Amino acid sequence: MRIEYGSKIIKTLRVKIIDKPGFLGKLALAVGELGGMFGEIKTVHIGKDYKVRDLDVYFSSKEEFENICEAIIKIDGIELIEVRDIVQEVHENGKIEVVPSVQIDSVDDLRLVYTPGVASVCKIIQETPALAKKFTTIGNNVAIVTNGTAILGLGDIGPVAGMPVMEGKSLLFKLLSGINGYPILIDSKDPKVIIETVRAIAPTFGAIKLEDIKAPECFEIEEVLDSELSIPVLHDDQHGTAVVVLAALMNIAKYTFINLRESSVGIIGLGAAGSGIQKLLNAYGIKKIYGTDLNPEMKKLFADRGGIVTDLNGIMENAKIVIATTGCPKLILPEMVRKGQVILALSNPDPEIEPEDAIKAGALYAADGKAINNALAFPGLFKGALKANAKTINARMKIAAAAAIASHALHGDLVPNILNLNVHEEVAKAVEDEAYKSGVAKAE
Amino acid sequence: MRIEYGSKIIKTLRVKIIDKPGFLGKLALAVGELGGMFGEIKTVHIGKDYKVRDLDVYFSSKEEFENICEAIIKIDGIELIEVRDIVQEVHENGKIEVVPSVQIDSVDDLRLVYTPGVASVCKIIQETPALAKKFTTIGNNVAIVTNGTAILGLGDIGPVAGMPVMEGKSLLFKLLSGINGYPILIDSKDPKVIIETVRAIAPTFGAIKLEDIKAPECFEIEEVLDSELSIPVLHDDQHGTAVVVLAALMNIAKYTFINLRESSVGIIGLGAAGSGIQKLLNAYGIKKIYGTDLNPEMKKLFADRGGIVTDLNGIMENAKIVIATTGCPKLILPEMVRKGQVILALSNPDPEIEPEDAIKAGALYAADGKAINNALAFPGLFKGALKANAKTINARMKIAAAAAIASHALHGDLVPNILNLNVHEEVAKAVEDEAYKSGVAKAE
Repeated sequence: MRIEYGSKIIKTLRVKIIDKPGFLGKLALAVGELGGMFGEIKTVHIGKDYKVRDLDVYFSSKEEFENICEAIIKIDGIELIEVRDIVQEVHENGKIEVVPSVQIDSVDDLRLVYTPGVASVCKIIQETPALAKKFTTIGNNVAIVTNGTAILGLGDIGPVAGMPVMEGKSLLFKLLSGINGYPILIDSKDPKVIIETVRAIAPTFGAIKLEDIKAPECFEIEEVLDSELSIPVLHDDQHGTAVVVLAALMNIAKYTFINLRESSVGIIGLGAAGSGIQKLLNAYGIKKIYGTDLNPEMKKLFADRGGIVTDLNGIMENAKIVIATTGCPKLILPEMVRKGQVILALSNPDPEIEPEDAIKAGALYAADGKAINNALAFPGLFKGALKANAKTINARMKIAAAAAIASHALHGDLVPNILNLNVHEEVAKAVEDEAYKSGVAKAE
Repeated sequence: MRIEYGSKIIKTLRVKIIDKPGFLGKLALAVGELGGMFGEIKTVHIGKDYKVRDLDVYFSSKEEFENICEAIIKIDGIELIEVRDIVQEVHENGKIEVVPSVQIDSVDDLRLVYTPGVASVCKIIQETPALAKKFTTIGNNVAIVTNGTAILGLGDIGPVAGMPVMEGKSLLFKLLSGINGYPILIDSKDPKVIIETVRAIAPTFGAIKLEDIKAPECFEIEEVLDSELSIPVLHDDQHGTAVVVLAALMNIAKYTFINLRESSVGIIGLGAAGSGIQKLLNAYGIKKIYGTDLNPEMKKLFADRGGIVTDLNGIMENAKIVIATTGCPKLILPEMVRKGQVILALSNPDPEIEPEDAIKAGALYAADGKAINNALAFPGLFKGALKANAKTINARMKIAAAAAIASHALHGDLVPNILNLNVHEEVAKAVEDEAYKSGVAKAE
């Protein structure tokens, strides 16, 4: 599944610009005309009559970038000093670290946190295992488990090449919800090995987040582990995405006066994301869900879960709301779009149909994957579940998370800003409450 | 094995003391007379004619502590305000966390470290796997693996109750060598399960530190994993302890003009620590090593490695250097000690013979476990191995570590201060150099 993950290239251009009105504008125009987009723009030096700026530029191909550089060089009053690979720079030495959360200034401090002091804490936990939540990090630790078989839109690139993504998830966990995310790379494609490995290391963690494991193996792995272990096990590619999609649909329904539960939905692409969306929309109360996929196994699983199997045309003809998670750009042709349809073309970086084309073809509402970031869901989902000491993250908790996310979007937006920490806090609260109400919170 | 791990209890007494000469002295004397020892002493408030101080007091039993409190209350001019459990306080919420090592201030920053930027780094690693060392934390990550079967001197208390120790090791890793230590608790006593689990998650790490796994299982687990995996696998209870013991022996040899390699050594207790000591002293060049244990299996393994099996008396009669790692206080009677012997009675908190009693009985040199802290070895051992990209930590690297540790002790001391970061840096360098020289460093 390719939702949210683009392949845009980013470079940093260091330019010396004459400090007069209009020069930055000329440069920005030239970059824009050639398809480049800007990220951060920083002033790094102010000279007598010039400024040196670092411009982060997003583009799609090497050729596009060479054209951009050539165009910049030709502008009078602008000098291209240096091109840097900011992405590589920021990833050097990785992106996370494991650090002490207590201060150690003296050997006396060490005698408290380590031997001989630590022995008394071990004994307390041995006598009352529930106190592990109080005296260790276990209750705030989440394993981020992958075998590297479905990393972003890159596919099966192996666990080690997937590590930068796992570190990114860990970074988001701490940043957005204070959780300790431990990347765990598993060297196996066999669901049994993954299940046994996670089962064996489970005591270390308060919850397990399965990540970028390909379908259909991801279904069995999640199901077996979540039912066997007393802690939540959640495959983010299925459910994190589904929660954000449901949040977006709640807001679309509000903006367009659609009754979501009475609507028909069509899902194109029944991999991890499509399946997760089916399950959650079903639990939310949407009864008529059409689906299609190139893989017959995925269609069978979809039907087993109560979905109506059809083909691309069947979906475009029957569904009020169309959700595409295929990874195939331009799959939906404008002439397939029916008047009044809602279309979420979620593949990144290139959607199944450009939102503006869908609107031109008569769609009531259209959006692409850039608006749907599953990192809006997982920090609060896990934090709420950990706080409630929940044994699983059930559909009611996911729906509560979606409602909390939806309610924080600015009017007209589908979802709120991901760096709004208040949103994650509110999602966690909603999930925790629902864990108690739905009876999956364990007694301490 | 019980080396280094005491069961001393620590409490913090908050006392209000008249601010005149002699009052703190009275209090300290009273505590000392009842067997209490002081840790940190902090002034928390200065009043008109009094001071409030927090005194960390170490003691051995509840009764001892009650006597201490009663004695303090009786002193005129001293008021006992509060007794706090400083150890529990410092362990609340655990002792480590996983945090971002890059700063995230904006959504633009997120687009660099997460999608879309991260995909390009994944691709680079997919094409050139060795670059995982440059662009991820893998090369600086060490798993701290336990199944909880031999936690400190507490024995088999299970992996979860062992977590405070694992977090302590992780804390020491970062503090002393900058390494990311990941506690991994494995819920199994079956060596096969532990081997398979570690093998499966190994891609996440640059090295594996086995911790507090009981003998004899620890031997098989280490041997199989270290030979199968391309990264170092080291059981700290065997080798960390052995390295520090060798360092101490190097200094003792210097102070007492003993020729270490020509000496005979007797090891009482052939568990993890005793076995590790045998292996390392053997590799160092000491040929005559006697050993004994209550467990016939341990004796057989000792003999298989070239040791001379005998009994307690045999060791006391034949060995110039006696090293005891039994966990049995007072096992060595003064009348067993021969004139000129060197005795390391390493069990904590109570040694096999008090050093002063051994000296009185004629020993040339005697020390107990307080002087031998295996946390002096592991941070530098692992850092050096990771820097060299070594596939194992061999005996030459361990001996280099011991020599580096020994050389940094102040004259008269056996080993240097554990919080001297320079020592850990020098140990790492010595280990790295020896990895290259002994041919276990992998080409990048």
